[in-house]
Amino acid sequence: MNTLTLGKNLNIAYIGGGSRGWAWGLMSDLALEKNLSGTVKLYDLNYDAARQNEMIGNRLYDREDVVGKWKYQAVKTMEEALVDADFVIISILPGTFSEMLSDVHEPEKYGIYQSVGDTIGPGGLVRALRTIPIFVEIANQIKEFAPNAWVINYTNPMSLCVRTLYETFPEIKAIGCCHEVFGTQKLLATMVEEMLDIKNVSYKDIKVNVLGINHFTWIDVASYLGIDLFPLYKQFVDKYHETGFEGNEKGHWMNDHFSSAQRVKFDLFKKFGLIAAAGDRHLAEFMPASWYLQSPEKVKEWKFGLTKVQWRIDNKQELLEKGRRLAEGKEEFILHETGEEGIEMIKALLGLGDLVTNVNLPNRGQIEGLPFDAVVETNAIFRNNSIKPICAGKLPTPIENMVSLHIRNQETTLQAALSKDKSLAFQAFVQDPLVQISPDDAKELLDKMLYQTKDYLQGWNIKEEITVE
Amino acid sequence: MNTLTLGKNLNIAYIGGGSRGWAWGLMSDLALEKNLSGTVKLYDLNYDAARQNEMIGNRLYDREDVVGKWKYQAVKTMEEALVDADFVIISILPGTFSEMLSDVHEPEKYGIYQSVGDTIGPGGLVRALRTIPIFVEIANQIKEFAPNAWVINYTNPMSLCVRTLYETFPEIKAIGCCHEVFGTQKLLATMVEEMLDIKNVSYKDIKVNVLGINHFTWIDVASYLGIDLFPLYKQFVDKYHETGFEGNEKGHWMNDHFSSAQRVKFDLFKKFGLIAAAGDRHLAEFMPASWYLQSPEKVKEWKFGLTKVQWRIDNKQELLEKGRRLAEGKEEFILHETGEEGIEMIKALLGLGDLVTNVNLPNRGQIEGLPFDAVVETNAIFRNNSIKPICAGKLPTPIENMVSLHIRNQETTLQAALSKDKSLAFQAFVQDPLVQISPDDAKELLDKMLYQTKDYLQGWNIKEEITVE
Amino acid sequence: MNTLTLGKNLNIAYIGGGSRGWAWGLMSDLALEKNLSGTVKLYDLNYDAARQNEMIGNRLYDREDVVGKWKYQAVKTMEEALVDADFVIISILPGTFSEMLSDVHEPEKYGIYQSVGDTIGPGGLVRALRTIPIFVEIANQIKEFAPNAWVINYTNPMSLCVRTLYETFPEIKAIGCCHEVFGTQKLLATMVEEMLDIKNVSYKDIKVNVLGINHFTWIDVASYLGIDLFPLYKQFVDKYHETGFEGNEKGHWMNDHFSSAQRVKFDLFKKFGLIAAAGDRHLAEFMPASWYLQSPEKVKEWKFGLTKVQWRIDNKQELLEKGRRLAEGKEEFILHETGEEGIEMIKALLGLGDLVTNVNLPNRGQIEGLPFDAVVETNAIFRNNSIKPICAGKLPTPIENMVSLHIRNQETTLQAALSKDKSLAFQAFVQDPLVQISPDDAKELLDKMLYQTKDYLQGWNIKEEITVE
Amino acid sequence: MNTLTLGKNLNIAYIGGGSRGWAWGLMSDLALEKNLSGTVKLYDLNYDAARQNEMIGNRLYDREDVVGKWKYQAVKTMEEALVDADFVIISILPGTFSEMLSDVHEPEKYGIYQSVGDTIGPGGLVRALRTIPIFVEIANQIKEFAPNAWVINYTNPMSLCVRTLYETFPEIKAIGCCHEVFGTQKLLATMVEEMLDIKNVSYKDIKVNVLGINHFTWIDVASYLGIDLFPLYKQFVDKYHETGFEGNEKGHWMNDHFSSAQRVKFDLFKKFGLIAAAGDRHLAEFMPASWYLQSPEKVKEWKFGLTKVQWRIDNKQELLEKGRRLAEGKEEFILHETGEEGIEMIKALLGLGDLVTNVNLPNRGQIEGLPFDAVVETNAIFRNNSIKPICAGKLPTPIENMVSLHIRNQETTLQAALSKDKSLAFQAFVQDPLVQISPDDAKELLDKMLYQTKDYLQGWNIKEEITVE
Repeated sequence: MNTLTLGKNLNIAYIGGGSRGWAWGLMSDLALEKNLSGTVKLYDLNYDAARQNEMIGNRLYDREDVVGKWKYQAVKTMEEALVDADFVIISILPGTFSEMLSDVHEPEKYGIYQSVGDTIGPGGLVRALRTIPIFVEIANQIKEFAPNAWVINYTNPMSLCVRTLYETFPEIKAIGCCHEVFGTQKLLATMVEEMLDIKNVSYKDIKVNVLGINHFTWIDVASYLGIDLFPLYKQFVDKYHETGFEGNEKGHWMNDHFSSAQRVKFDLFKKFGLIAAAGDRHLAEFMPASWYLQSPEKVKEWKFGLTKVQWRIDNKQELLEKGRRLAEGKEEFILHETGEEGIEMIKALLGLGDLVTNVNLPNRGQIEGLPFDAVVETNAIFRNNSIKPICAGKLPTPIENMVSLHIRNQETTLQAALSKDKSLAFQAFVQDPLVQISPDDAKELLDKMLYQTKDYLQGWNIKEEITVE
Repeated sequence: MNTLTLGKNLNIAYIGGGSRGWAWGLMSDLALEKNLSGTVKLYDLNYDAARQNEMIGNRLYDREDVVGKWKYQAVKTMEEALVDADFVIISILPGTFSEMLSDVHEPEKYGIYQSVGDTIGPGGLVRALRTIPIFVEIANQIKEFAPNAWVINYTNPMSLCVRTLYETFPEIKAIGCCHEVFGTQKLLATMVEEMLDIKNVSYKDIKVNVLGINHFTWIDVASYLGIDLFPLYKQFVDKYHETGFEGNEKGHWMNDHFSSAQRVKFDLFKKFGLIAAAGDRHLAEFMPASWYLQSPEKVKEWKFGLTKVQWRIDNKQELLEKGRRLAEGKEEFILHETGEEGIEMIKALLGLGDLVTNVNLPNRGQIEGLPFDAVVETNAIFRNNSIKPICAGKLPTPIENMVSLHIRNQETTLQAALSKDKSLAFQAFVQDPLVQISPDDAKELLDKMLYQTKDYLQGWNIKEEITVE
Repeated sequence: MNTLTLGKNLNIAYIGGGSRGWAWGLMSDLALEKNLSGTVKLYDLNYDAARQNEMIGNRLYDREDVVGKWKYQAVKTMEEALVDADFVIISILPGTFSEMLSDVHEPEKYGIYQSVGDTIGPGGLVRALRTIPIFVEIANQIKEFAPNAWVINYTNPMSLCVRTLYETFPEIKAIGCCHEVFGTQKLLATMVEEMLDIKNVSYKDIKVNVLGINHFTWIDVASYLGIDLFPLYKQFVDKYHETGFEGNEKGHWMNDHFSSAQRVKFDLFKKFGLIAAAGDRHLAEFMPASWYLQSPEKVKEWKFGLTKVQWRIDNKQELLEKGRRLAEGKEEFILHETGEEGIEMIKALLGLGDLVTNVNLPNRGQIEGLPFDAVVETNAIFRNNSIKPICAGKLPTPIENMVSLHIRNQETTLQAALSKDKSLAFQAFVQDPLVQISPDDAKELLDKMLYQTKDYLQGWNIKEEITVE
Repeated sequence: MNTLTLGKNLNIAYIGGGSRGWAWGLMSDLALEKNLSGTVKLYDLNYDAARQNEMIGNRLYDREDVVGKWKYQAVKTMEEALVDADFVIISILPGTFSEMLSDVHEPEKYGIYQSVGDTIGPGGLVRALRTIPIFVEIANQIKEFAPNAWVINYTNPMSLCVRTLYETFPEIKAIGCCHEVFGTQKLLATMVEEMLDIKNVSYKDIKVNVLGINHFTWIDVASYLGIDLFPLYKQFVDKYHETGFEGNEKGHWMNDHFSSAQRVKFDLFKKFGLIAAAGDRHLAEFMPASWYLQSPEKVKEWKFGLTKVQWRIDNKQELLEKGRRLAEGKEEFILHETGEEGIEMIKALLGLGDLVTNVNLPNRGQIEGLPFDAVVETNAIFRNNSIKPICAGKLPTPIENMVSLHIRNQETTLQAALSKDKSLAFQAFVQDPLVQISPDDAKELLDKMLYQTKDYLQGWNIKEEITVE
């Protein structure tokens, strides 16, 4: 590689390349970035979906408003995608919506409500059990065919996906990439605009120190130019704690599953003193059931929503149709910046400018007081083929306690998945703060959920389900 | 000191020397040990109680069946007790039964049941808040007047008492001493007798590796002579899991608050694979409310008891009368071995034989995976003025998770007590697994409990209680 | 502080404000920086020198080419300098050239040659012993009068100065700042220009991962744009290993005490595989005497110089005269960028842009495998009132071994200084790799050196020196 | 296993079973221990030697004074020895005396003198390089054929042998066993007898806390009954520092290679304050050449000896002849207790009484401040199929520095051996404190030594030796 060809002729392997949302976002971001070009190889269990994306992507090549020129190529094996890859992007759906229906809604029969169900809680745990073997396979393929490639994962449960990659192939150069912290930076930017009457504050100018685990990340230092934002946030929280803050977010929590009025975030600040840096839907799941997710009514009071899987199913249907139209050229692909930082990361890794942003990486000391090797989220600096986490310090003991509980539960989940050990899975299950039911009920629920995701649990001793209604 | 006078002319300072149970037990043990002699200085906030014990103790001196000759002397200040002390024994009641009534029974109004209420849970936490300043004072006095003495603590909450001593005076030579593990060794001895048809198995021949924290200690290796006891325990648990095992314990769980049928212990083994090494009443408090302490009925099913404070009050009345009779010589002091190991420890520290037993000490590496400086319970070896913990290894991750949660909660409690910070106390309170109520209820309960122990919380900003019924 | 006044009306306390080199450099850098203004308070044991610098500094204020407007004010106590300080700069000479003469040249009588004598080796150790009490005093004053100020230290021995600040006042916001790594980045920039035939490569575009301790820092990743510089450096070293590389450095090693032909650096690369990132004069002192500093002849072969203290004395004389002329306006103060990063750091801490550069900070995990709290040198990111070290990874075991030896020796030196313990000082002295003499000779030499610096060792039990020739 | 058969029908695999000294010692110890019996399988590269030992051992069976009844059986493969083994004893000579000649005497040509040459120093390092592959093989065989057996190693270099076993097979149950600390306990016992006029003090009653690495072990607590031995040792050292202490050791340092007058040990106490717990011949090798091993004259002054390999060669000749006589029954095998603790360890592991003694084990926290996994020497407690190290605390920083240097050098040596990397071997070689020569000379010496041990360095890129005289 030399400076002249920097960023040219890149090879990107896209695992899950048949996806609608994420793949199209990547195409858009690549099309708008003039410094990069090359080939994206799309691999997906659903080859037809990858083929369709190949068509959609290649339609962009000749458009005048497209400054980043990329070829897209669907491939039939992961190996074909990985060979010669400079970068690997992983964005898959582990299982189908059928399993996700069980993840999210089966626990409701036991009074356990989950607003997302893909990270922790009963749903997150069972999703992890079926995802981990897939990531073992991916890691092994990367080890064989692209050991030097940089790997960017977007799949949830984020922490365990990245943890599995490193457990399987310790030398892997992988990170987990999530936009939840940006959302909090945007909230802080809006707050600065409102409280200080400043216009056009970019969230990128909100400098934060990030520490925690994915979707349960915390900010203990935040500033805008020379201004410490903590005193301001305190006023802001006092003002909006009861009513919530709708701001200028696109959706509204009453009709948009992804929106919230930030009341959970504000409440956590009042109770623990730091800024929780993820959406309320995610944050709520990390706390005991009696706090925010006790019942649908309680959720409504806290002004966020339970994301029904049926919505995802319906939404996918729309995307399928849109995909067909895009592939056939019947609908124009509209370019827009997604706000994801994948492309920025790739540029920084190529030597095209430094980048400081939050990522998920094994703990090598960046967070004091949390176990080594656990996948944690902090800022890191990306420069020329190197990513180094930034020492984020130590969480206050009470928050560290909550984070640490989830870390050890994730570690137990990993061991359960690798050894196909239901007893270990149970030991993690009952320690999840959303699971405040009796151990007997917990056992029954876990059994049902494992049964309903059994297609992805080869080798497990799954209890045959008789009682499913 | 030389070998001829080894064990002679010792000075023991007894903080809490007016106590009935513990002080009389010590007198008995000292009277039965021929290798030691000297003076015990009794210090107590209640000087009259110490004076009474002085009389009781000194009556023993001339008895023929007493082979250990000791003088007892009540003193009016802690300083008098500590000056020249070789050993310091701490066994106090922090506060009165009035505060303990609140600790144990106030939470019941919120559906939180505690079988002891002195270690963790709402009761343990509030008890800790009022105990910590007392132990700060004791540590400071020891630092000034007896910095080289060995300090043996029996007071609960054990972990936080010992933690406070080291936090205040890091060079202190203190240990926490608790008999709960012996109880489990006795159970295993009984098991060996029953299952292998061997007679007279001494619990001292049950060799165990101990790791955890006080009252939530675990055994991962147990043997008798060359026999691994784990397979045997598995059979034993299978046999008695449902019915419980009454064994030859003195009391019965239905009428003795301190007894149990070991069902909690057996259930923890089935669920987590290690032998929990404390009484069921203590173990139950470390687990989520929904496991064993959900309701008085549930407790009965699990065949252990909720120790009512009224029982303690009644019992104390009896002891007070007994004390008067003993002091006046109207009742004979009956010598018996208590089974506590304090005297054995003193002998070993003097060079009179090695001792290996379980104690509570700051973690200096004896348990891998738990925070440094947290007070943990493992075996240690006592030899000639030296106590060295034995490396106990690492707990399995799921158990480590539970232990770690309580350790960090205790650390938060310590910080709350030292800084008189109600917000920190709340952050620990709501993370206790017995507290599965809403944060609002938790706040209200904590406020009430703090108000009811306010005599011992000087300097705190206590909310005035209006609503107490 | 708000964004409008960002960087205005700053207060800088300059400890050692009578210095010639460093103080004038700061004046120059401040004068050239348009975004900052305020007052610099100059404190120096030599008040007259501070007064002179006040005059020199204030002469700049009205010059047209001066865009940064600063007032300078000499003060008589450290307290006056510190009160209200936003930043504290420490740049002092601990002791006088008389003590430095002993540090550097007394060991030569025992065959121990030092090229600088201010960091480690016999000279560095004894310098540390007299510097540490001074820094204890500075830290205590900062704790009392400017606890929230950012503190930038330039004084050597760097690691121990910063270590002492944190040992005395753990909450201090101090860093140690050293330009040696920049020198290596400049060498790499020159290398890129020569080997790749590229013009005007800025050393700031040489991105490096830095890890080690001050003056014994190592680079394990280096790149320029997308180019990995390690293969190139290997060729470069092969080319110049024997002859040395003079490059376009200002001085020449034969007549400039501060120059070298980089042969030590190249040799270390050949032997250990990483790029040593300090000047050869410093690097040589960290290695055994038999490597580079065995004799003046050997030093000449390796093409660097022994910095004679007499040169410093002569040079100071020149500076004194120059100072007089500048103060009286007889010589014009010439503005130039010093290349030091102090001003850049101040700007970044104020929120005026992020900065990534190497600094000396207590190890909080930024270097794996080295002791916590030891002062290590790595990159850190400066943003808005926050400095966070970047996780630099782990040194290869053989290099870690050398670094670790010096860290523990420095720790012993610190303890020796704090407890005024000659035996501890000796235990560090004999483990220094430059001290390959017999313990008896080492004892004699140390005694002599302590005697000769005795004015700064109040409370030590210094052996009266009879045998000084 | 049950209590009746405890200690009966054991299988011991003896790797190096053709050895004369160690094997005969084991036979003697086994013959004198009435509680154990079974079969010892003797495996040796030299099968004839094993056969001869088989004959010697089996002659004991019917002797009346032999209370421990064992069968001996020479086997042709390691597998045969290991299958069904309860215990594995490893006591081999890595290479032959020819390599040892080079290890010990080649460095003398460069002015480097070694008193033993089997632990560290040039000789220890090269011996390690050829030993490590042998121990990789042994560990792999144990993993395959006796994964649950307890493994006791006596071979040097002890630390690296044990380290290699764990590196290769992390679940191995291996310890390293060395009698050097006993020697120091015996010295202390003699001291007690002399200084306190007490008769018959057993070294087993000298209780010590042990910490360090094999042959460079330190004692920071020592007592006899209730008596702290440190003040006494100080007097003792003051008395004998100059003259040395001959005591009642069997040999004398002038004619016995294994004796010394303890002057090195005394000098280390005066300089570092702790009791060094190994023979002077071993201790001297860990210190810089300029301390004790500068020249044969210096060694004589310090009153210990350089063990010439020729002595070993001559001694072996005698042993060979003795072996023949023993096997043929021409000389009677004289039973004596060796003082090695292998048999005591085996008994304790079987459940026949607890044992506390010093052993070499990977650091799991037993020594604070030293790297995890490094093989360190501390006390451990042996009970019923379990060995747990005792937390020994932390070494004072200056001693920790010396120990740590050797640990990292050993780690580098291990990596060099595993990767057959001469450059790494060199990086360890030049950091050894005995190697105070120039790097060029060091390189030449290492090359020669590697050449002379090349039969055991398959796969290395050995420089062909032209210049060997």
